[in-house]
Amino acid sequence: MTDDTGDLVEPGGRLRLFVEDGLNAGDAVALTEGQAHYLRHVMRARSGDTVRLFNGRDGEWRATLDLSGKRRASATPRALARPQQDGPDLWLCFAPIKKTPADFIAQKATELGVSVLKPVLTRRTIVNRVNTGRMRANAIEAAEQSDRLDVPECHDPAALPWLLAAWPAGRALLFCDEAGAPPALEALKAAPRGPWAVLIGPEGGFDAEERAAIRALPQTVPVTLGTRILRADTAALAALAIWQAAQA
Amino acid sequence: MTDDTGDLVEPGGRLRLFVEDGLNAGDAVALTEGQAHYLRHVMRARSGDTVRLFNGRDGEWRATLDLSGKRRASATPRALARPQQDGPDLWLCFAPIKKTPADFIAQKATELGVSVLKPVLTRRTIVNRVNTGRMRANAIEAAEQSDRLDVPECHDPAALPWLLAAWPAGRALLFCDEAGAPPALEALKAAPRGPWAVLIGPEGGFDAEERAAIRALPQTVPVTLGTRILRADTAALAALAIWQAAQA
Repeated sequence: MTDDTGDLVEPGGRLRLFVEDGLNAGDAVALTEGQAHYLRHVMRARSGDTVRLFNGRDGEWRATLDLSGKRRASATPRALARPQQDGPDLWLCFAPIKKTPADFIAQKATELGVSVLKPVLTRRTIVNRVNTGRMRANAIEAAEQSDRLDVPECHDPAALPWLLAAWPAGRALLFCDEAGAPPALEALKAAPRGPWAVLIGPEGGFDAEERAAIRALPQTVPVTLGTRILRADTAALAALAIWQAAQA
Repeated sequence: MTDDTGDLVEPGGRLRLFVEDGLNAGDAVALTEGQAHYLRHVMRARSGDTVRLFNGRDGEWRATLDLSGKRRASATPRALARPQQDGPDLWLCFAPIKKTPADFIAQKATELGVSVLKPVLTRRTIVNRVNTGRMRANAIEAAEQSDRLDVPECHDPAALPWLLAAWPAGRALLFCDEAGAPPALEALKAAPRGPWAVLIGPEGGFDAEERAAIRALPQTVPVTLGTRILRADTAALAALAIWQAAQA
């Protein structure tokens, strides 16, 4: 289906595809086999239809599809639709949790605007392996659907002590501690603008030593997210939403 | 496993069970077969162990387990651990969406403190059936794990025009419209305290007529949740988190 401007549309909006290559008017870009399959068999697209392309660097382009190859497909950028714009500099550092796949966190955090997804291994982390390739695939899909012009970087898991030891001097750390800290909004109002990160622990929380090490960082801003106990993934989404709202 | 006070504990915290019956010191309460099974075979609990019970009316009680029956189990309240306290008067009115089971929304919204879960059928709602029994089961589980003292009411689906026609005079309606509205936090700061609801549309959004009808309600407070396009379930969670943070 196409809209009145000839763009292919999905139920959620215009069809947008993330590509790795540079985007320049007239230079055809190869699409992946997955993208070609989706265009052909789900979208029932045809050569000549218009898709939107973005790569995180060159803005969003309207591009003309070529589906004449047997399995492959390409698209040729025609006109810049939106110039590149960077989102907030906001990391999400999260302990992977057992019940909720990292897929879910990657998807929601991408919609909520994070720039970096950083899995963190803590003492009580039950999950030891994180499929970062799959995390990235989920982040790409969420970026395509949420009108972002970039995809969050997906980092390999790091152990908490290493993360803290290398913590950047100018990056504030929103630490969603359970009790005794000021409400998130109050703390954020008083805090400086600039690079931030949200840090979320595993199911069982951080242990006392980990907690002390996090609190010892001068960049740490401890907050509470309310009186109820939130699951780790809920806490991550709530913290990101509140951070975004406070910056708006 | 029990903690130093003799309470059964799960990885997330103390074991809490929701029951329908009244809670009074010394009056045994029957547990469901599901609860009995969980206690016996997952928790490996024994008669004499302590669980916490709540029913949404009588506070949270420490209660002594009796697993001597063959399949059944009961628990006898011994001491009030926390008096009943009501959470915020906050409804979530949401159009059920296809990709995300209502389970997920029920779970997250319960953690984030809603008092009522109200599925709404709109013109672009693809899902027509909502399993409210299952929604309630998910809300109960989330209430048990999030330290709430009550379980949100789970209503049957209502068509949008009926919902709006019967909208309570004193209940403000947070309408997460896509564009042109003020940022959520700004609008919430200027808005009155009191009963609220968050209204979230389906995948494709509300149509123009529905949107006009919602905006025509004097109780409606239109807001925007930022520049990115959020999935309906992400928008619901973000709106609830921001509402809670603004009230804290």
